[in-house]
Amino acid sequence: MKVKEETIDRIRKFTGDRDWDKFHSPANLAKSISIEANELLECFQWSDDDYDLQHVKEELADVLVYCRNMLDKLELDEDEIVNMKMSQNEAKYPVDKARGNSVKYDQF
Amino acid sequence: MKVKEETIDRIRKFTGDRDWDKFHSPANLAKSISIEANELLECFQWSDDDYDLQHVKEELADVLVYCRNMLDKLELDEDEIVNMKMSQNEAKYPVDKARGNSVKYDQF
Amino acid sequence: MKVKEETIDRIRKFTGDRDWDKFHSPANLAKSISIEANELLECFQWSDDDYDLQHVKEELADVLVYCRNMLDKLELDEDEIVNMKMSQNEAKYPVDKARGNSVKYDQF
Amino acid sequence: MKVKEETIDRIRKFTGDRDWDKFHSPANLAKSISIEANELLECFQWSDDDYDLQHVKEELADVLVYCRNMLDKLELDEDEIVNMKMSQNEAKYPVDKARGNSVKYDQF
Repeated sequence: MKVKEETIDRIRKFTGDRDWDKFHSPANLAKSISIEANELLECFQWSDDDYDLQHVKEELADVLVYCRNMLDKLELDEDEIVNMKMSQNEAKYPVDKARGNSVKYDQF
Repeated sequence: MKVKEETIDRIRKFTGDRDWDKFHSPANLAKSISIEANELLECFQWSDDDYDLQHVKEELADVLVYCRNMLDKLELDEDEIVNMKMSQNEAKYPVDKARGNSVKYDQF
Repeated sequence: MKVKEETIDRIRKFTGDRDWDKFHSPANLAKSISIEANELLECFQWSDDDYDLQHVKEELADVLVYCRNMLDKLELDEDEIVNMKMSQNEAKYPVDKARGNSVKYDQF
Repeated sequence: MKVKEETIDRIRKFTGDRDWDKFHSPANLAKSISIEANELLECFQWSDDDYDLQHVKEELADVLVYCRNMLDKLELDEDEIVNMKMSQNEAKYPVDKARGNSVKYDQF
C-alpha cells in the first residue's frame, strides 16, 4: 500500500516538532538521500542474496522519508514529477529496442 | 499530491513491457537508487542555491521510481515501512533533546 | 605525502591475512567505494563548515583503501589511469572556457 | 604503479589554471567523490561481470583525483591517514574473528 496522507502528516509533524526545517535545504536533503541510499546499498555490500530484510526496510524507508522532505521543501507534486519522468523514460526506451536488454538509451 | 495508483501501474507496465524485471534484483535496485540519488546530488555539486529545478525534478523522480521498483520486488507495504521507521525515529530523537539541533542520536 | 609502497603492502597483507580477496569482486569494491564516500559525505550532511576533521580523515582513508583494493584487483596502474583521465579533463575543459566557472563541459 | 609526484602537480596545475580552487570546499569535494563513486558504480549497475574496463578506469581515476583535491584542500598526508585507518581496521577486525567471513565488526 502506498503511503497514506496521515503518514505524510506524521513526517511533517516530526520535522516541525524538532524545528528541523531550517536544516532541510534542498542541497542538504540531496546529500541525505544519497547517504541513506548508501546505507541501503550497504545491506548488499558483500552479497546480492544474503541480506537482512528488516534492515533493508528501515533503510529504504529512510530514503523515502527524505524524498518526502524534498518534495515538501520544493513544493513538488510527486504524482506530476513521476509521470513527467515516466513519459521521458517511455520515449527514451522504446519497447522494441529496450525489450530484454539493459543497454543504456544513448547506446541504441 | 502523492503518487496515484494508476501511476504505480504505469511504472509496473513500463518494466513489464520491457521484460526488465529480470534485472531488478534487490541488489541491483539498491545500486540504482544510489546512482540516481547521486545524479540528484550532482544538481547541487558546486552550489547549494543555484540549481536547475527541472533537473532536480527529473532526478528525484528517478529515485522515487527505483524505490517503487524495490517496494514491488520485495512486496513491501510503503505505508507500513515508513510508519515503522518513523516510530524508530521518534524514539531515537525525543523532541526535548533534538529540538533545533542536528546532533546525531548517538551523541545525545 | 603520498602513500608509501610499504603502506600499500600493509593494505594487501590486511586483505590476505583475512582471506577477504574472495569478497573483493570489482562490483563489490565499487559498492564499497560509494558506501565509504557517503560516510565521508555524512560529515558534511547538515553543515559545510562545521565538520569533525578526525572523522573526515578516517572516512577519506576508507575511500582510498577501497580504491587501492580495486586498482589491485583489476591490476591497474594508478599513475597511468590518472594521467589518462587528466588528459581527457584538460581537453574537455579548456582554460579559456572553464576559467573561474563551474559549468559542465557539455554546456560550453 | 602508484601516482607520481609530477602527476599530483598536474592535478594541482589543472585546478589552479582554471581558478577552480574556490569551488573546492571540503563539502563540495565530498559530494564530488560520492558523485564520481556512483559513476563508477554505474559500470556495475545491472551486471557484476559484464563491465567496460575503459569506463571503469576513467571513473576510478575521477574518484582518485577528487580524493587528491581533498587531501590538498585539508593539507592531509595521505600516507599518514591511511596508516592511521589501517591501525584501526586491524584492531577492529582481528584475523581470528574476521578470517574468511564478511561480518561487520560490531557483530563479532
